[in-house]
Amino acid sequence: MNRLFHVPLSPYCRKVRLSLAEKKIEVELVEEKYWEQDPDFLRRNPAGKVPVLKMDGMTMAESAPICEYLEEAYPEPSLLPKDPKQRYEVRRLVSWFDDKFHHEVTANLLYERVNKKVMGQGYPDSKNIKAGAKKIKFHLDYMGWLLDQRRWLAGGQMTLADFAAAAHLSSLDYISDVDWNRNANVREWYAKIKSRPAFRSILADQVPGFPPPAHYADLDF
Amino acid sequence: MNRLFHVPLSPYCRKVRLSLAEKKIEVELVEEKYWEQDPDFLRRNPAGKVPVLKMDGMTMAESAPICEYLEEAYPEPSLLPKDPKQRYEVRRLVSWFDDKFHHEVTANLLYERVNKKVMGQGYPDSKNIKAGAKKIKFHLDYMGWLLDQRRWLAGGQMTLADFAAAAHLSSLDYISDVDWNRNANVREWYAKIKSRPAFRSILADQVPGFPPPAHYADLDF
Repeated sequence: MNRLFHVPLSPYCRKVRLSLAEKKIEVELVEEKYWEQDPDFLRRNPAGKVPVLKMDGMTMAESAPICEYLEEAYPEPSLLPKDPKQRYEVRRLVSWFDDKFHHEVTANLLYERVNKKVMGQGYPDSKNIKAGAKKIKFHLDYMGWLLDQRRWLAGGQMTLADFAAAAHLSSLDYISDVDWNRNANVREWYAKIKSRPAFRSILADQVPGFPPPAHYADLDF
Repeated sequence: MNRLFHVPLSPYCRKVRLSLAEKKIEVELVEEKYWEQDPDFLRRNPAGKVPVLKMDGMTMAESAPICEYLEEAYPEPSLLPKDPKQRYEVRRLVSWFDDKFHHEVTANLLYERVNKKVMGQGYPDSKNIKAGAKKIKFHLDYMGWLLDQRRWLAGGQMTLADFAAAAHLSSLDYISDVDWNRNANVREWYAKIKSRPAFRSILADQVPGFPPPAHYADLDF
């Protein structure tokens, strides 16, 4: 049986879960409190992070290489276009969300509000929360601008770029940190992606001590 | 003419330079002081980072997507194997160096000693330098362990993983922060990669105020 070691609100884990579900690859989800540095887990993954995917005789870490592997070994349905220039644009956007958006928004909001408490690292720093709340506006505007010209974030086809973005935004939506009224394009895009069967397991996530708001799992938010 | 906006000691720029040179793609190198936030440069790349590659009608940012593009659009000589599992291993190691090694070693040594001074951000923090000097030992040992079983870092073939690792180590070697006596496998691997024609431009780099040590460009170091 394939196994994914994950934490529910990690955007990197959610991106892998979305890829697996879209490709209809069954996987057992195992919650892994990686910050407790369990020796068994560290043996599986010396980098000490999630996601870790056990599959096809391998133990894989790092979400971007995992998604590239899934795309190559299980090409249908495809989450990357065929043309090298379009593939570049998908990968650029995946890096944009997993690097820049993560650093400016997710780390400032989600990690301050949830991870610190769950990991016993004290109280949220309001300076960081303010910075994150300011930066997310710029990113939502940027997404809206892309979606003015494109059906999906990287072009005409739904790709890993959409999953990377939706992974971050859904985790932030779990703590009510996304203003869906800011940009109509973004709201429409999220409604489309949220209603896919691949999204169901993510909408069912529950983190003890942090109940999601009512709109989180509502397809008509 | 293709143009690469770069800074000489950036490992991400060096990885792209090595890929371009190995594939014999000619490119004009333009030094870009990205921390000065020149409006022209920010228009080319809103993320405000290097490398930025102008080529084939595109302005590309993010070193990993750039290298994937070069591999797909200019497949010879190949820097990625054909098998999806082996490709995963290459990409895992690229992430390992560009993420973990960068965070634990390069940021603590190179950025403290060089970037801070060049960018006018004050003096090196000796706590960080000590942390980096300690961590690089672990990474050299890990590389040595991989090279015990493999001719190159990811397997039998030279790949992007070797370029990612050599990009970081060569920048650190410029400031004499690599102990080549620690592991014979690593030294032998670096001697092999350093003697490739693709490495020449990197060995000719000069940063004002930071002359390289004599062994830096010596193939018989």
